[in-house]
Amino acid sequence: MQRKIRMGMVGGGQGAFIGPIHLMAAQLDNQIELVCGAFSSDPAKSKESGKAYFLPENRTYPSYEEMFKAEAELPEGDRMDFVTIVTPNHMHFPVQKRALESGFNIMSDKPMCFNLSEAEQLVDLVNSTGLLFGLTHNYTGYPMVKEAKHRIASDQLGKIRKIIVEYSQGWLATFLENEHQKQASWRTDPERAGASCCIGDIGTHAENLAEYITGLKIAELCCEFTTFVEGRLLEDDANLLIKYDNGARGILYSSQISVDEENRLSIRVYGEKGGLEWDQQEPNTLVLKHLDRPREIIRAGANYGDRLSPQSFSAGRLPAGHPEGYIEAFAVLYRNFASTLSAKLEGLQPDEASLDFPDVNDGLRGMSFIDACVRSSEAGAQWVSPKFS
Amino acid sequence: MQRKIRMGMVGGGQGAFIGPIHLMAAQLDNQIELVCGAFSSDPAKSKESGKAYFLPENRTYPSYEEMFKAEAELPEGDRMDFVTIVTPNHMHFPVQKRALESGFNIMSDKPMCFNLSEAEQLVDLVNSTGLLFGLTHNYTGYPMVKEAKHRIASDQLGKIRKIIVEYSQGWLATFLENEHQKQASWRTDPERAGASCCIGDIGTHAENLAEYITGLKIAELCCEFTTFVEGRLLEDDANLLIKYDNGARGILYSSQISVDEENRLSIRVYGEKGGLEWDQQEPNTLVLKHLDRPREIIRAGANYGDRLSPQSFSAGRLPAGHPEGYIEAFAVLYRNFASTLSAKLEGLQPDEASLDFPDVNDGLRGMSFIDACVRSSEAGAQWVSPKFS
Amino acid sequence: MQRKIRMGMVGGGQGAFIGPIHLMAAQLDNQIELVCGAFSSDPAKSKESGKAYFLPENRTYPSYEEMFKAEAELPEGDRMDFVTIVTPNHMHFPVQKRALESGFNIMSDKPMCFNLSEAEQLVDLVNSTGLLFGLTHNYTGYPMVKEAKHRIASDQLGKIRKIIVEYSQGWLATFLENEHQKQASWRTDPERAGASCCIGDIGTHAENLAEYITGLKIAELCCEFTTFVEGRLLEDDANLLIKYDNGARGILYSSQISVDEENRLSIRVYGEKGGLEWDQQEPNTLVLKHLDRPREIIRAGANYGDRLSPQSFSAGRLPAGHPEGYIEAFAVLYRNFASTLSAKLEGLQPDEASLDFPDVNDGLRGMSFIDACVRSSEAGAQWVSPKFS
Amino acid sequence: MQRKIRMGMVGGGQGAFIGPIHLMAAQLDNQIELVCGAFSSDPAKSKESGKAYFLPENRTYPSYEEMFKAEAELPEGDRMDFVTIVTPNHMHFPVQKRALESGFNIMSDKPMCFNLSEAEQLVDLVNSTGLLFGLTHNYTGYPMVKEAKHRIASDQLGKIRKIIVEYSQGWLATFLENEHQKQASWRTDPERAGASCCIGDIGTHAENLAEYITGLKIAELCCEFTTFVEGRLLEDDANLLIKYDNGARGILYSSQISVDEENRLSIRVYGEKGGLEWDQQEPNTLVLKHLDRPREIIRAGANYGDRLSPQSFSAGRLPAGHPEGYIEAFAVLYRNFASTLSAKLEGLQPDEASLDFPDVNDGLRGMSFIDACVRSSEAGAQWVSPKFS
Repeated sequence: MQRKIRMGMVGGGQGAFIGPIHLMAAQLDNQIELVCGAFSSDPAKSKESGKAYFLPENRTYPSYEEMFKAEAELPEGDRMDFVTIVTPNHMHFPVQKRALESGFNIMSDKPMCFNLSEAEQLVDLVNSTGLLFGLTHNYTGYPMVKEAKHRIASDQLGKIRKIIVEYSQGWLATFLENEHQKQASWRTDPERAGASCCIGDIGTHAENLAEYITGLKIAELCCEFTTFVEGRLLEDDANLLIKYDNGARGILYSSQISVDEENRLSIRVYGEKGGLEWDQQEPNTLVLKHLDRPREIIRAGANYGDRLSPQSFSAGRLPAGHPEGYIEAFAVLYRNFASTLSAKLEGLQPDEASLDFPDVNDGLRGMSFIDACVRSSEAGAQWVSPKFS
Repeated sequence: MQRKIRMGMVGGGQGAFIGPIHLMAAQLDNQIELVCGAFSSDPAKSKESGKAYFLPENRTYPSYEEMFKAEAELPEGDRMDFVTIVTPNHMHFPVQKRALESGFNIMSDKPMCFNLSEAEQLVDLVNSTGLLFGLTHNYTGYPMVKEAKHRIASDQLGKIRKIIVEYSQGWLATFLENEHQKQASWRTDPERAGASCCIGDIGTHAENLAEYITGLKIAELCCEFTTFVEGRLLEDDANLLIKYDNGARGILYSSQISVDEENRLSIRVYGEKGGLEWDQQEPNTLVLKHLDRPREIIRAGANYGDRLSPQSFSAGRLPAGHPEGYIEAFAVLYRNFASTLSAKLEGLQPDEASLDFPDVNDGLRGMSFIDACVRSSEAGAQWVSPKFS
Repeated sequence: MQRKIRMGMVGGGQGAFIGPIHLMAAQLDNQIELVCGAFSSDPAKSKESGKAYFLPENRTYPSYEEMFKAEAELPEGDRMDFVTIVTPNHMHFPVQKRALESGFNIMSDKPMCFNLSEAEQLVDLVNSTGLLFGLTHNYTGYPMVKEAKHRIASDQLGKIRKIIVEYSQGWLATFLENEHQKQASWRTDPERAGASCCIGDIGTHAENLAEYITGLKIAELCCEFTTFVEGRLLEDDANLLIKYDNGARGILYSSQISVDEENRLSIRVYGEKGGLEWDQQEPNTLVLKHLDRPREIIRAGANYGDRLSPQSFSAGRLPAGHPEGYIEAFAVLYRNFASTLSAKLEGLQPDEASLDFPDVNDGLRGMSFIDACVRSSEAGAQWVSPKFS
Repeated sequence: MQRKIRMGMVGGGQGAFIGPIHLMAAQLDNQIELVCGAFSSDPAKSKESGKAYFLPENRTYPSYEEMFKAEAELPEGDRMDFVTIVTPNHMHFPVQKRALESGFNIMSDKPMCFNLSEAEQLVDLVNSTGLLFGLTHNYTGYPMVKEAKHRIASDQLGKIRKIIVEYSQGWLATFLENEHQKQASWRTDPERAGASCCIGDIGTHAENLAEYITGLKIAELCCEFTTFVEGRLLEDDANLLIKYDNGARGILYSSQISVDEENRLSIRVYGEKGGLEWDQQEPNTLVLKHLDRPREIIRAGANYGDRLSPQSFSAGRLPAGHPEGYIEAFAVLYRNFASTLSAKLEGLQPDEASLDFPDVNDGLRGMSFIDACVRSSEAGAQWVSPKFS
C-alpha cells in the first residue's frame, strides 16, 4: 500500500452502537482513515458527530445524497475511496444503490438489505458497476474461525456430518422497545428491520459462520419463529433443523430472550475423523477433537511452528495469551477489504489472502436464508429450501 | 430403616458395563445389600459372576425364572426384597413381568421396555400388583439437577420459555458393532434395542431430564433420525424441535457420532425472569442467570445457608469442593427407592422426599417419546404428538 | 480375592464427617465389609452409631481397647482383618499402637500422628510387627493423579523445574470454633490437632500430592504461618517457598481463610519438555502442555488406546464423561490396601499395582514436613530442612 | 477535546513487537494521531518504518536527538504533543531525559528505567519540568481490573488478608537467545535489560497489578531467583513471599520457563468478607466470592444497572459478550493520558477519571521492587524491604 485508504461513513453518529465500532475497526491497522461522513438523517446530529470525530466541517455532510455528490466532485487525491454503511436495515439498499451509482466502493453492515428482492437488485448493480463490495459478517475475522475453516478445508475432520451453531442473546427478554430504547426499537420494527428480528439481526451471523467454516451450503431447513414477549412485532427466538448440501445435518438456534446470554455465538462441527468447537465469547481458543487421542486446545497466535495455519496466524496481531477481541476481528475484514481496494486502485492484482472478506454473494445467501426462515415458519415449521442455495 | 434392604440382580454379570455400576450405586449408602442374582443367560457365566460378587453358590441362579421361583420360596427374613434388572432392552419386559407375577418389587434400567405396547402392559401390571417400581433415569439423582428443579418449581425463573437439552457421545462414530464390541452390538441391533438406538439409549435421558427439571411435558415434536455410519441398522444421531405443554419451545439433540464427546448431557432453561445451565460432565455446578445482575455459580453442598434447597443438599454426601459423580447420583435413586420400600415393608408411610425417584409413569413417558420420535422421523421429520403427553 | 476383607472402625460415629466417607470408600468396590466398630469415646454414641450402620450389637464396642481385645479373641473366620482409624489427630497414635500390639493391620487417617516423635515410634512398631499400614492421603487415588505421576515417571516432561501446589479453603474465614462447630473446634485446638491447623489438616495433602506425582522430595523450605482470625490458637494460612532434591523450585500455599474456596487442591508441574496441571475440583481432567504443540486435555477413562496409562485406567471404574469423584478416589486406596492385605492373608505375593497406597513412610514424611513448617515459621520464615527428607 | 493529540514515537520500528501495539492502542479511540518518529537507532530502518506508517519523510527522523530538536522548533500547531518511548530498557532513561529537557510530555514503556538510580533521577526531572509522564503498565487498563479495584476500595471484601499474583510464560523454556531471537536476546542481556530478566520484564507487571487493585503497598519480600536454562545470564524464574503494609500476606511468582504458558497474569485477593479472581487471558470476567452465598461472575460491559462500577464501565467500549482484549486495555491508558494532556494543553483541569494511568511514582515503585528482589535473592532469599515502599 502506498497510502492510507480514505473512508466515508453513512450513519453511525453519536449514540449509535455500531458506528464507532466500524471506525475503530477500520482504523486499527493504520491503513484506513475516516475523511468524511453523513452520520445521521438529522443534519444537526450529523454535524455534531463529525466534530466529535475531528472531521473538518466541509467534509461532514447533512445527507448521504449530498455526500456522494460532493465527494464525487473532489479531486482524486482527496475524495473518499469507499463508503461504509452503518444505517438500520431499511436504509441499506437506498444508500448502497446511490453509492454505486456515484462510483463508490462499499463496505456495508448486515443483513445486506431489507429483503431478498433488494438483494437481488444489489447483486446486479455490483456486478454491472464492477465496484468493490464488502459485508461485515465480522465474526469470520477471528483468527480461530480461520483456523477452523482451514482444518476442515484440509480434510482434518473428514466428511462433515453434523453442525450445531447458535447465537443467543438475552437483551430482548423484556419489552425493551416499549421503553424507547433505540437499538430495540428499530430492530423489532418490521418497517425498519424487515420480516425478521432475531434471525435477521443475529441468526444470519450463525448461518454465515457455519457456511464459512465448513464450506457447505444449506440445502433445506425447518424453522420455527416464536415471539415470546407480548406486544412485540417480530420474532425474538428461532429454532431450526438443517440439511446441508453434502448430507450433513444441523441445528441452528438463535434467541434474544435467553436471559443473561450476551453474544453467545458458538459452533461445533463433527466429521468422520474429528470435531471442533469455537465460542465467540472466548475467541482465541479452538478445541480440536480426535477419534482416538486427547482433544487439543489450539490458541490464537501460538508458537506451534507450522501446526497453526498461516490464515489464522496472519489474522492476528499479538502473541498467544494477549487476547484479541471483537474489534480486532472486525478489523481483519477492513484490512482485507483495504488491501484489495488498494491493489485495485493501483492497478495491481490483490493477493489471494486479502480477498478473504464477505462479499455481495454472501450477502445474497444471507438474505435468502432469512427469506427461507420466514417462509418455513409461516408454513408452520415445514421444510423449505433457500432460493439461492 | 431397621435393616438393610436385600437386592437380587438379573443381568449385569462379568464384562457387563452397567451391572457393577448398579451394584456400587445400590450399596453406596449402606442401606442395600446384594443377596442373590441371575447374572447371565449363560448359567456358567452367572455362576462365575456370583462368585466374583462373593455370593453364596445357592443364591446364584442359572436363570431369572429359577431365581424368582427359589427366592419366593425362601422365608421372609431371607429372601430378596426387590430385583434390579440390568439386561438389554428386549429382556426388560419379560423379566419385569415375571418379577411382578412372583411378587417382587423392581428397580429397572431404561428405556423401560422394548416398545410402547410392552410399556402399557407394564403400567397395568404394576398398578394391579401394587408393587414398587423404580426406573434408573440416574441423571435426576444429581444434587444440582434437584436444585435446578427446585429453582423452577419455586418460580425463580418465571414462566419457562425455552429449553435446550443435549446428550452427545462419540463412541459410535465408527462401525464398532462390526468389530463385535459387546455394548455396540446390542444397542445397534433392532432385535435387542428396539426401534431406536440413539434416542432409546441416551435421547430418552435428555427428555426425562428436561421434563424432570422443568415440570413441563412435551406436547409436540419434530424429529429427524440420521444413520451416519454405513451399514448401521439404527439411527446414530437425532435432532428435534419441541413444543412443551405451556407453550415453551425447545431443542433436543442426541448423537453417538459426535467425535470425542463423552457423555455430554447438558441442559439450559430460560424463563421470563432467569435462566439456568447444567452439564453432567461437571455435575456439581449449576449456573443461575438473572435479568439484571451477575450470574451465580451454585455449588453442590455449599454453605449458603438456606439459599441451597434441602432437596439438593440432602442428595449429596460431601462438603462443596469434594466432587460427587455419576455413581453417587445413581445411588440417590437407590437410596430413595430403598427408603420407600423399607417404609412399605414396615407398614409405614414413606416420607415425601424419598418418593423422588423415576417410576413406571416416567418410563411410559419415555417409551411414548421414543415412539413419537420414530413416527416423526419416518414421516420425514413432521410434527407429531407423543401418545401419552 | 476369595472373600471380602473384614473391617473394624475406630471413630467415625454419627455426626462425624469423615467416618461415613471411609465406610463408603471402603465398601464401594464390594471387597470390604464393615464388621465391627468403636465409633465414639462415648459408649452410648458408639452403640447408636453401630445400629445406624446395621451392625450386630455384640460387634459394637464401647471403646477401642475393648474392641481390639474382643476381636482378637474371635475365631479367624470371624474377626476383623484390619481396623480403620478415623479419630481426631491426638487419638491416632494411641489407637495405632494398641492395634498393632493386638495384631491388627491398620488403615489410618492423616496426619499420621500428633507429632513427629509419635510418628517415629510408629514406624518402628509397624516395622517390628510386620503388619500392614495404610494412610489415607486420599487425593492420590484419583485416576488423573496417577496419570500425572506416570507421565513424569516416563520422562514425558523432562527434568522437573517448577512445582506450584495449593490447597485453599475458606470455611475458617470466620471464628467458627467460637460457635462450637465440631469440625472447627478440634482442628484449631493445639491439644487435639497438634502444632499446626492449616498445614497439618490440608497442607500436608499438598505436600504428599507434589511428592507423589513428581517423585521428588522436599530438601528445604521457607514457611510463614499466619493466623488471620483473631482469637484462633493455630495458623489458618501458610505460604512456602520450596527447594526439591533435584534442584527444582516450588511454591506451596495452603489456606483456610480464602473465602469461598471449597477444596481447591491443585498442582502444576513444569519440566524441560512439558508441563501438566490438575485440579481436584475437576478431577477427571489432566492438562498436558508441550513446548511446541497445542496442549492436550487428558480425560479419565478415555478411549485413547495405549495413550492412557494402565495406572490411571485401572484406578477408574467408568467410561469417560461419567465423572468419578472424591469417594471413588478414596476407594482406590482401600481397594489397593484390601488387595494387598488379601494376598498377604492368603500367603501370596501382592501384585505390584496393588501396593500403590500411602504407607507409614509417607506418613513419616508428612509429619516431618509439618515439623519443618513449624520450625521455619517460628524462626521468622527462615529456610530449614525437613528432618527426614 | 478540541483536536487530536499528536504523538511521536521513539523505537518501535519494523520487526519490533511492542511498537505497533503502542500505535494501535494510541490511535484506537480516535483521539491520538502519530505525526513523527525515530523508529530505530539505524537511520535507514527508521526511514523504512516511517514509510510503512505512512508518515511524511520530513517527520521521520534518524535519531531521537534530532527528532526532539526538530519537533521543538516546529510551530505549536504542528509539533508533537508527546513522545512514546518503546525502546529496550537501557534506552529508556536517556530518551526520557532528553525528551523532558526538550519540553516533551512522555508515555514510556516499562520497566521505567534501567536501574533504581535512574528512576530516582527521572522522578526529579518530571517533577521539576512539570511535564506529563505516563507508564504503560497496560494491564491496569482492563475494565475488570478497574472493577476489582473498585470493589476493594468500596470495602466489599473487607480488610484484605491474602494476595496471590502470578505472571507465567513459557517462551524462554529453551536457550532462545542463543538462536539470536531478537526479543529473547535483549531481555536476557544484563547490558540492555538490567539486573533482572523475569522480574523486570513481567514480574513488575504482577507487582503493579497487585498494588493497583488492592491499594496496598509491599512492605517486605523474600525472593528467590532461579536461572533454569544453562548459559542464560539472568534469572528466568522468580518466587516470592510478601508482606503488605496492612499485614496482608502474599505470594508472587513469575516465570518464563513455564512451558506452554502464554501470558498467564492472574490475581486472587481474599479479604475478611469476600474474595475476587481475575485472569488476563480471559479478561472480561471477574469472579466475586462471598462468605455465605454463591460466587458471582461479573462481566465487562454487562447490563447490571448500578451494580457495575462506572470506572469499569467507562473503560470498555462494547456490550458484554463482545470481547475486548489486550489492545483495548492498552488503549485505555492512552485515552486517559490523552484526556489529561488535552486538558492541560487547553489550560483546563483534567477530570478525576482521566488521571487514572500509571505515572512516574508507579514506575519508581516498580524499580524499587525489582531492586529489592535482586537484593533478596542475592542474599539467599532473605527478607528485605523495598527502598520506597
